Amino acid sequence: MIFLDGKTELNVRMHGTRACRLAKMAALKLPVPQAVVLSADDVSQIAKTGKVPALPKAVLTGLLSLRASPLNPEWGGPTAILNIGISDSTLPDVGEDAAYLLYRRFIQSYATNVAGLEAEDFDSDLPDGAARIARCKSSFELETDEAFPQDPETQLKACILHMARAWNRPSAKILRQAKGAPKDAGCALIIQHMVLGIGRGVTGAGAAQAVDDKTGEARLWGRYLPQSQGQDAIIGAREPLSIEAVPAKVQAGLRTAGERLAKGFGDAFQVEFTVQNGALWLLDASPAKRSSVAALRINVDLAEAGIITKNDAVLRTEPHALGDHLHPQIDEGAARDILAKGLSASPGAATGRVVFTPEAAMTMAAQGQAAILVRVETGADDIRGIHAASGVLTLRGGMTSHAAVIARGLGVPCIVGAGELRLDDSVLVCPDGRRLEAGAQITVDGTSGQVLAGATTMTQPNLGGPFKTLMNWADEVRDLQVRANADTPADARLAQRFGVDGIGLCRTEHMFFAPERVQVMREMILAPDAVARKASLDQLLPMQKADFVELFEIMRGQPVTIRLLDPPLHEFMPVDEAGMAALAQAMGMSVVQVARRAEELAEVNPMLGKRGVRIGITTPEIYEMQARAIFEAAAQVFAITGDAVVPEIMIPLVSANREVELIKARIEAVAAEVGSTVAYKLGVMVETPRAALRAGDLAESSAFLSFGTNDLTQMTYGLSRDDAGRFMREYVQQGVFPDDPFHSLDVEGVGELLLIAAQRGRAANPALVLGMCGEHGGDPASVRFCKVAGFDYVSCSPYRVPIARLAAAQASLLAASAK
Amino acid sequence: MIFLDGKTELNVRMHGTRACRLAKMAALKLPVPQAVVLSADDVSQIAKTGKVPALPKAVLTGLLSLRASPLNPEWGGPTAILNIGISDSTLPDVGEDAAYLLYRRFIQSYATNVAGLEAEDFDSDLPDGAARIARCKSSFELETDEAFPQDPETQLKACILHMARAWNRPSAKILRQAKGAPKDAGCALIIQHMVLGIGRGVTGAGAAQAVDDKTGEARLWGRYLPQSQGQDAIIGAREPLSIEAVPAKVQAGLRTAGERLAKGFGDAFQVEFTVQNGALWLLDASPAKRSSVAALRINVDLAEAGIITKNDAVLRTEPHALGDHLHPQIDEGAARDILAKGLSASPGAATGRVVFTPEAAMTMAAQGQAAILVRVETGADDIRGIHAASGVLTLRGGMTSHAAVIARGLGVPCIVGAGELRLDDSVLVCPDGRRLEAGAQITVDGTSGQVLAGATTMTQPNLGGPFKTLMNWADEVRDLQVRANADTPADARLAQRFGVDGIGLCRTEHMFFAPERVQVMREMILAPDAVARKASLDQLLPMQKADFVELFEIMRGQPVTIRLLDPPLHEFMPVDEAGMAALAQAMGMSVVQVARRAEELAEVNPMLGKRGVRIGITTPEIYEMQARAIFEAAAQVFAITGDAVVPEIMIPLVSANREVELIKARIEAVAAEVGSTVAYKLGVMVETPRAALRAGDLAESSAFLSFGTNDLTQMTYGLSRDDAGRFMREYVQQGVFPDDPFHSLDVEGVGELLLIAAQRGRAANPALVLGMCGEHGGDPASVRFCKVAGFDYVSCSPYRVPIARLAAAQASLLAASAK
Repeated sequence: MIFLDGKTELNVRMHGTRACRLAKMAALKLPVPQAVVLSADDVSQIAKTGKVPALPKAVLTGLLSLRASPLNPEWGGPTAILNIGISDSTLPDVGEDAAYLLYRRFIQSYATNVAGLEAEDFDSDLPDGAARIARCKSSFELETDEAFPQDPETQLKACILHMARAWNRPSAKILRQAKGAPKDAGCALIIQHMVLGIGRGVTGAGAAQAVDDKTGEARLWGRYLPQSQGQDAIIGAREPLSIEAVPAKVQAGLRTAGERLAKGFGDAFQVEFTVQNGALWLLDASPAKRSSVAALRINVDLAEAGIITKNDAVLRTEPHALGDHLHPQIDEGAARDILAKGLSASPGAATGRVVFTPEAAMTMAAQGQAAILVRVETGADDIRGIHAASGVLTLRGGMTSHAAVIARGLGVPCIVGAGELRLDDSVLVCPDGRRLEAGAQITVDGTSGQVLAGATTMTQPNLGGPFKTLMNWADEVRDLQVRANADTPADARLAQRFGVDGIGLCRTEHMFFAPERVQVMREMILAPDAVARKASLDQLLPMQKADFVELFEIMRGQPVTIRLLDPPLHEFMPVDEAGMAALAQAMGMSVVQVARRAEELAEVNPMLGKRGVRIGITTPEIYEMQARAIFEAAAQVFAITGDAVVPEIMIPLVSANREVELIKARIEAVAAEVGSTVAYKLGVMVETPRAALRAGDLAESSAFLSFGTNDLTQMTYGLSRDDAGRFMREYVQQGVFPDDPFHSLDVEGVGELLLIAAQRGRAANPALVLGMCGEHGGDPASVRFCKVAGFDYVSCSPYRVPIARLAAAQASLLAASAK
Repeated sequence: MIFLDGKTELNVRMHGTRACRLAKMAALKLPVPQAVVLSADDVSQIAKTGKVPALPKAVLTGLLSLRASPLNPEWGGPTAILNIGISDSTLPDVGEDAAYLLYRRFIQSYATNVAGLEAEDFDSDLPDGAARIARCKSSFELETDEAFPQDPETQLKACILHMARAWNRPSAKILRQAKGAPKDAGCALIIQHMVLGIGRGVTGAGAAQAVDDKTGEARLWGRYLPQSQGQDAIIGAREPLSIEAVPAKVQAGLRTAGERLAKGFGDAFQVEFTVQNGALWLLDASPAKRSSVAALRINVDLAEAGIITKNDAVLRTEPHALGDHLHPQIDEGAARDILAKGLSASPGAATGRVVFTPEAAMTMAAQGQAAILVRVETGADDIRGIHAASGVLTLRGGMTSHAAVIARGLGVPCIVGAGELRLDDSVLVCPDGRRLEAGAQITVDGTSGQVLAGATTMTQPNLGGPFKTLMNWADEVRDLQVRANADTPADARLAQRFGVDGIGLCRTEHMFFAPERVQVMREMILAPDAVARKASLDQLLPMQKADFVELFEIMRGQPVTIRLLDPPLHEFMPVDEAGMAALAQAMGMSVVQVARRAEELAEVNPMLGKRGVRIGITTPEIYEMQARAIFEAAAQVFAITGDAVVPEIMIPLVSANREVELIKARIEAVAAEVGSTVAYKLGVMVETPRAALRAGDLAESSAFLSFGTNDLTQMTYGLSRDDAGRFMREYVQQGVFPDDPFHSLDVEGVGELLLIAAQRGRAANPALVLGMCGEHGGDPASVRFCKVAGFDYVSCSPYRVPIARLAAAQASLLAASAK
């Protein structure tokens, strides 16, 4: 049994977190009522023997509280019992009503907890007073055949024995083991003198912290409930007051406490407090409540105050939480009229009018109106619609469905897989029967996955201030490059805003979906011979070159990795009557012929079809045009800006080194033909398991290998990203997969292929540059994996760049500390 | 310079194959004209110096021939020159006309080969005689400014110098290097006394062997052309006679030669011979011509005669060639009413009624009638139709088109690319205008590529005799089990006929496509709740059980590996109006609702979708029904036959061990519920790269791993078998892939995954059984790989079982000899 005298150091395993914090608060000279602690071993002994040791006289004066103090507060424990020691002869001097209220509360608490009686046996319409106490005591005697104990020591010992036994009940053990407690976890008990929140003068209880819970700013924030005890202000029936309701002196005391606790604990803390007749007492402390935005500011402020290091601030900030800094968010207090729920695929919130086609979204955008694009699922045709929309909602698909990936990349708030909704003849039908037609106003909350009716109030993002400070600190320690997957000048500019080191993946196919280009692309695909094909490619060349010129200018000499055309050609074919008719006219074919050719191009498993380098080998003119555009653009930008552009040309979907050799020879021939003096690198996008296994061969023909972990995951699992939504949730719920492997890299399977490839590749070519350019590039755990695997860079969608930068910094710090 | 005196041993690298064979023939006391050999070194020296050494007088008598003798006859070499030494003063005594003919031939050969003149300069309408010789000589003099040489030694030396130089010409080098010759390959020359096939008495030349070229039976077979020289009987303008045309004495000589050569060379040999005035002379020998059926018989006969060992016979027989033994063939003499011709894609012939859809083929098969499935081209949807059909005919596609590959695997006679035929509104239009509607009887001859009207007489395959003898010898040395991929009792019976060790893959989904079952299956898929689903499964249970009872009975205690349901459920949905209507009625739904549900089930990449164990986990009742059917069937068969059936239950498309654990627990629960005492094994079909990498985990939950190399290849390459046809031919032609990886196992990529899995699996569970059950199980090179990798069995389609048995035996012999 240890007195908390502000000097004795406690052991957290033996005395629990609450007791240790109380001891520290006492040491910090904060007003903590006198207390003693029964160690976990003591409590375990009591539970075993059923005997409570004698208690020192010094403890047994006035009213007492008894609280559990396990190692981890999350594990739970027996309910605290307050006002122990109260009896007919020891009513405290707080006025008669208040004294009877405290007495009645104790009897109820003792009866239900210690004696195990039913709570309703002690319900009554009587007001608090002598009569009600008599009724309670007789109820107790009726149920237990014993008088309600009047001796304070008897009361306390019974409470202690009850708590010791409660902790050791099998059901309690199972519950806390489910929360991660070890089998033999013990629990200390704290016996503390009561300060009474009920009584004369300014009296009450509450919780407060010295930082704002939403913004993290230094500002007293909390709740207070006059004439209340313990948790009443937090879980009581009465509405608490704001912290401004307590006297200035108490506020000052709370501020001082906040400062001392921050220094003492190295973090912003919240306190549980009681005001007794104007005097402030602190009963417990725990880390301050904070939103993710507040958490970042708190960490930065602590570091700037010299309480923690900058590296601590970097390590403490949860990378995923940065997302909340980048997007508008729905105000916490805003009313939410929830229509349905889906998967939160891309964070942030947006209000707009429902549209059901990409064309309608573009029309809305042209009129300066916000549109929410609602689709069953999306495909390549929808990309421009997603671009134009303020938010996206799909009824099917998982976290890595087309809509989710594209929206995340664009930073457009997005909900996918909202299966409760139904599309019925261009009316969106909600589970409660509400029917939304095109034009109806809704809000998608991509952070929570909720679809709301109408508009709501929002907070806007702020990339300066503490956010910027923290990102600078992260960059100081980071040694893994972070590049962006950026296909357009808009993407590239966004990536620059988010502090990127280059472009790790420019998907050139996205450059061909613009209406004026896709028509030429289609003519190229249907060209009857090489001459006609060349004519179409000659039309595409200046467009493609202009794209690259703009990208290179924006990136100012930073690396730009350009992936040669990847998708199967049928993705470019029209699916609607109008598109087919236009193409038929341009080609001098009948619509039926065009439709037939489109059908012939269709594939059973397009993911595993004629795409990537397979197109490059069988229709080499396409890659040749792209290479020429790259060389000419780099030369032009160098001539104008003086920035030496070193383009990195990446070959997709390789499965054999011969593919690389053939494309390499053709690209070298183009360079020679153009007379290009541009230094460029040629590398491989490793997306097939075979490419990973044969990385030793590939490394001999390649300057870099970049792992396209989306496709690599698909092929390693035999699992289509587009189709996985049908069962992925169930799979993760049942624990078949620990996590969605499209979300966080599957270290055991896909990860092993990455390690094999890295090792073989570097062995064959020590100068080989290794990168990752799948969606995983923005996943903190996967970024850590890349650091451990010795990669040079990760590349992710622009909105994930800050997340990756922070995760990379953390990985560097962890790696350094592991040395 | 070496005289072939029947005693001197030659060196094949230095003197070439032809010279060595001649030397051996002389040693065998066969009638070989006298000859000398200039070694490859001599010839090389002549080419370098331009000087031909002096030739012994013994050589320079009578007429001579000069022939090239490279190491490998396939490499080619300068054309033989005959009748050297002929001149105005040395005309041979064979009658005037014949002598002038020989002389004129020599002048032409000398002029075009040695002097490099144009052949047409020596064309003439004059008959052979003095006048024509004079014209030829003056043409020679006109073009070369030199008289035609009359000195035999001058002639011979010029011929030798020409041949030595011709061999060393750059174009000749490139040509033979393309055929695999080393850079410095040399060529010996043979100078041989002529025996003249033109002249008095029974005189002529031909080729003969002592075994029939089609059947391999011991019977003199060959061709003979009176009054001819050298290759005239083989490539001459006149039609040669059958070998019976030579006198009995010559036939006897040829038979004796055949016997001695077989003993001497250890193989049946063909000879090139000349009959000079009734006397037989042998000029060359080479392995006898033989069909694959003949080759097998020759090997067996040689072994039975003690000339080679049984193991030699096993090693010498090409496994692929066994295919020709297994199928019915059209009688050689049968009348053929040819409708059209295409590519002979899968051997054997079949007569049946024309059907245009896979459904119609299945209906026909269900009625016990033979169907010929006629399609423009086939896809995945047609596989069941090809299964059900007796023959297949497609209008498009090449030797590796879908139809060709599937039909070969199934042993179904097949013609592809019959482009002369046209499909016109469900009528097959022939080039001669004949129109065949569904139900018309035709015959497809997959061996010749001919489509015939009506039925024809056929010879049935003979699996006895030499075939059976050889397979028995193979089984004596084989230690790799060969199982069959068999889904139906018919497949199983066929597999038994082909000497199988068990069933390695029973694809249970094929049991659900029968019309009366697929309807129940569809109801199960669309069941609104678990109760309705169970009702459908209760209907399927007895059907499934009956399937297994029959299979187990046929297999009589041999292992039967049953793969639980694998394909995505949408494959069972109706695609036609009638099917939808029937299903709608059964389900009390509208056709539109059924169509919508079918559409909802459709997948973007079905190969990578919700199939295999993913169905087993999310709709566990299906696998539970299947497990119950297996246990009940095994118990029933044991009760009736006393054969202890040990079913092997295989889980498809696993990617994580947790999947196996979950299914295993459910199957164990079913076994307990049924009260089954059946010993069974549970294992995994390894089809995803991840399953291969995690084989160590899987082996702890599994009794066996069976590699589904079709899917594993698809996923390792990121390449759909259904879509690869678009570029695979081009890829193999360009050498991007050395071979179609769906044909022969990709040892470097897929093979490494197999080795990794085998090593990890066995390390975790030394008793683990390893097998391969993809189509590669029937590919000899892949079977060898499995043997080297330490597998226990391969499993392939029944028609490939003999091939796999032979390949496995060869692999065992090769492994033993490598020790």
